[in-house]
Amino acid sequence: MTDGRDIRNSRARNDVSTGARDVLTGARDVSAGRRADINIVLYKDFTALDVFGPVEVLGDVDDFRLRYVSLEGGIITNRQSIRLETEPFATVARGQIVLVPGGFGSRKSIKDERFIAALRQLVDDADCVLCVCTGSALVAETGALDGRIATTNTRAFDWVADGHPAVEWVRGARWVTDGKYYTSAGVSAGIDMALGFVGDRYGLAAARDIAERMEYRWDE
Amino acid sequence: MTDGRDIRNSRARNDVSTGARDVLTGARDVSAGRRADINIVLYKDFTALDVFGPVEVLGDVDDFRLRYVSLEGGIITNRQSIRLETEPFATVARGQIVLVPGGFGSRKSIKDERFIAALRQLVDDADCVLCVCTGSALVAETGALDGRIATTNTRAFDWVADGHPAVEWVRGARWVTDGKYYTSAGVSAGIDMALGFVGDRYGLAAARDIAERMEYRWDE
Repeated sequence: MTDGRDIRNSRARNDVSTGARDVLTGARDVSAGRRADINIVLYKDFTALDVFGPVEVLGDVDDFRLRYVSLEGGIITNRQSIRLETEPFATVARGQIVLVPGGFGSRKSIKDERFIAALRQLVDDADCVLCVCTGSALVAETGALDGRIATTNTRAFDWVADGHPAVEWVRGARWVTDGKYYTSAGVSAGIDMALGFVGDRYGLAAARDIAERMEYRWDE
Repeated sequence: MTDGRDIRNSRARNDVSTGARDVLTGARDVSAGRRADINIVLYKDFTALDVFGPVEVLGDVDDFRLRYVSLEGGIITNRQSIRLETEPFATVARGQIVLVPGGFGSRKSIKDERFIAALRQLVDDADCVLCVCTGSALVAETGALDGRIATTNTRAFDWVADGHPAVEWVRGARWVTDGKYYTSAGVSAGIDMALGFVGDRYGLAAARDIAERMEYRWDE
């Protein structure tokens, strides 16, 4: 499939064709102005900035309600001493947005069959899936990215790609879109991807305004 | 006072003199390799990225133990649906590091005399104080920045500066150091400042390695 695909590559961003952008922008009509939950999937030892970079962007959009969810709900912790309250996966409504961060814990969660099966359900039921860093490995493990283009953390690239050969992994991209799936490179790239998502849905000016408020030099 | 001062200005960063850098680097000998708590001061309606940008940087340093604290302890919430567990200010040890984020809530907390008095104590007892965004307004309100150079959020600059005329506010800087005080511009600038802090303490190579892991284009 080639519809709705785009590669946003900081090293080759001038090569992004207008055609590819037009294809992407076409998706905007479907979803602009629609209220949605952003269900942020947490698990033990997620990476903070993978979550809170995109949160800083998406929290600026009035249409979006941010929710932090985990398989069972309750307090989720990580190596950055975070203790965050979450709601269970079972509370996630269909037709919403799911954000999957990466982190050290992804190497453990990827082997947790119950977690991966439940994540597959969330992903299938979602209108849009945003993966940051090794979050794409978790979603790839569900099989949902098979045959699609995607990217992931630069340092973990081979681990992720070798483990999921049915995905067309794009090395060196800042973020990649394929249909309802957005995937970004490592950690801070999630901010650029979230801005790109807002740009696709609400227009470039809206995304740039958020970047300016954050005093963030967006790698468009 | 002029010792230990530095202005890191993205628009004029080539103007930073080697002399100023040397003065700053001189502080490294005092603190390199010393274990420290990073006490992150939370209050209702803090801004997520002000906290978790620096957390992503500082959490990579083995010497640092991250702690989330608030005046009374307990769950702190914000407009990004975060519900985070904290310990009370009373648990903060002397001679550690304090990080003060900004946020919508700073406009309320700045009028809370009990909060400001307790913050003054934390700041006075700290070896180093890192302020992100309007976090510098809270620390300025304690009086601790009087006579020092500092910066703050670009959009909130006049509000912060007009309210604290005894501080030498530097407009347009990415971050500023004066003695034990580091202050940054808005939101994402806290990441650059935290990398600068690590660079001062552990050397530029260490900071660049963290930036690379985060896939963050550090505005050195």
